[in-house]
Amino acid sequence: MTMPKTTITITDVAKAAGVSKSAVSYALNGKPGVSDATRAKVLDVARSMGWKPNNAAKSLSDASTRTIGVVQLVDDAENFGAGMFAMDCLAGLCQVLDPRDYSITLRMTAGGAHAACRIHEEWIASGAVDAHLIMGVELGDPRLALFRAHPEAKAVFLSQRAVTKGLPTLYSSDDEGARMVVRYLHGLGHRNIARIAGPEEYVHTITRDQATADECSKLGMRCTTLHGKYLAAVGEQLCLALLEFGDSPTAIVCDTDVTAVAAARAAIARGVSVPGDLSIVAWDDSPSCTSATPKLTALHRDVRSIGVKAGSMLLRMIDGESVDSEPEDPYQLIERDSTAPVSEA
Amino acid sequence: MTMPKTTITITDVAKAAGVSKSAVSYALNGKPGVSDATRAKVLDVARSMGWKPNNAAKSLSDASTRTIGVVQLVDDAENFGAGMFAMDCLAGLCQVLDPRDYSITLRMTAGGAHAACRIHEEWIASGAVDAHLIMGVELGDPRLALFRAHPEAKAVFLSQRAVTKGLPTLYSSDDEGARMVVRYLHGLGHRNIARIAGPEEYVHTITRDQATADECSKLGMRCTTLHGKYLAAVGEQLCLALLEFGDSPTAIVCDTDVTAVAAARAAIARGVSVPGDLSIVAWDDSPSCTSATPKLTALHRDVRSIGVKAGSMLLRMIDGESVDSEPEDPYQLIERDSTAPVSEA
Repeated sequence: MTMPKTTITITDVAKAAGVSKSAVSYALNGKPGVSDATRAKVLDVARSMGWKPNNAAKSLSDASTRTIGVVQLVDDAENFGAGMFAMDCLAGLCQVLDPRDYSITLRMTAGGAHAACRIHEEWIASGAVDAHLIMGVELGDPRLALFRAHPEAKAVFLSQRAVTKGLPTLYSSDDEGARMVVRYLHGLGHRNIARIAGPEEYVHTITRDQATADECSKLGMRCTTLHGKYLAAVGEQLCLALLEFGDSPTAIVCDTDVTAVAAARAAIARGVSVPGDLSIVAWDDSPSCTSATPKLTALHRDVRSIGVKAGSMLLRMIDGESVDSEPEDPYQLIERDSTAPVSEA
Repeated sequence: MTMPKTTITITDVAKAAGVSKSAVSYALNGKPGVSDATRAKVLDVARSMGWKPNNAAKSLSDASTRTIGVVQLVDDAENFGAGMFAMDCLAGLCQVLDPRDYSITLRMTAGGAHAACRIHEEWIASGAVDAHLIMGVELGDPRLALFRAHPEAKAVFLSQRAVTKGLPTLYSSDDEGARMVVRYLHGLGHRNIARIAGPEEYVHTITRDQATADECSKLGMRCTTLHGKYLAAVGEQLCLALLEFGDSPTAIVCDTDVTAVAAARAAIARGVSVPGDLSIVAWDDSPSCTSATPKLTALHRDVRSIGVKAGSMLLRMIDGESVDSEPEDPYQLIERDSTAPVSEA
């Protein structure tokens, strides 16, 4: 995709003339925005470097597009967490791209992984981006096959290595995070816990389910897991379902802030004390966790650092380095007011 | 920057050959991804339309970049609202851009309006984007002068007409929203209210301040306004300051969800009943407003529709239409549990 850099660029001329890149571009393209003196100087310098007026567009184009392609999947659920995640992640990405003068080419689609795949395919075909960042990978995601078929396309996946199998991946710490929560609750004396988990088609749902089950079994704890969408109504309903049974759990771990806030509210409305009778832990700390009463204990990750790491991997790929998969920073458990030692009843 | 469309495009060839644009690009660029039969067919069709192999990159480039430039200002405050706003707005923008095969070219900067201005200037100079969307305009913003100096650059501002003075603007309904809240509180019997407002350098802060003061004066109400950053600590501190005075307000309108949640919590911790003794209204409804106890009455706007409207204005500009400033959709007041008729004490 990349061509050898045999042409002079705007950056080259700007450096040689001691002016900004904008000034060079205005001057060479005959646009307003620079003084006549600057224009004359830029034209002199550019000509001395081999620039010819009738060839401006071509000779001044960089071989690279200086852009990273990102397709964000949007849905209609109350899935604010996903939007926040994407924005923070993109902010981290920009933080490393900016000094290199790279932009993000952003598309959003409500058409799921298949629609995203078609956009990446167009980008690969047209050479519209230098590299791709892939988020929200599902089981059987067509984007995995696309990038396997195009090893020349540079891409980093935010996913799990078990799913991407050899494709360069910034992999999540969900396994570790799930085990940390189980050990934390074990330390508080909880032996019978539950999960209000996300939909089973999400890779991270399964990762968390498996790690939770494994760690519980090691520690001799019991865990019941129910799955549902990231909706307040689901958090409420599944919490009440768990409390219905005689041997109800003493702690519930929810996969999002939305379901955790709703679960805590539903328990309290039913006369169950949080954290007196029931501890609640939320994944994906957010402002909602601190707005709630009691403030929710939550798993926190530095999402911006995910963008920074992914950006660094992508730039190294663009620079021709071979890049291995890397782990995200680990989750932190932020202890607030919704968890307590199990009460001896 | 735009050239007359005298060249054939990938789209033209794809239509004529009855294959996807990706297939055309793979075929003509000699890349894997299409069968030999498809490649032969595409080459035949393209040649019949005047395409020449040694001129591929040039003859297949569209005159336009098919991208809209957006620079998002990021800061380090607890300003989650801004991130959510940007993401929802971009989602709306993509919704209208996607069918036209347009992408967003996104940059984020922590360098404020001046850093954003330099990026737009580069884009204007290099012709890297077809049009610009400008968010987060401040008083004396250098981007206003930039786009006045470059009337050939297509741009839509999300701001106030009083600030953009003739530049195409999708203007907010903050004036109307502020008046609606005052009338709502007046209807509940409140006569002495307060505002915990945002920083005074924000255009929408001043817009809300002025409209609130004007509407209060019309209705014979009193309003005290304090300004501060969008931080929980500020919401708490300013609420306590307002409650300190003998003649404290019976209702407080906060400029963000963050300060509103903190103000409500601080009042309750001090033994003030919300909404019994004090009503609280939040601007910019968010999940935090429904996570709080009591759930907060809030001003809600359909942020995605802002992106949709802005995108439609930008596409009409790109199509050569002249575009006038337009209003955003009005705010809605969502009544929840934090407001009540004033108590007769």
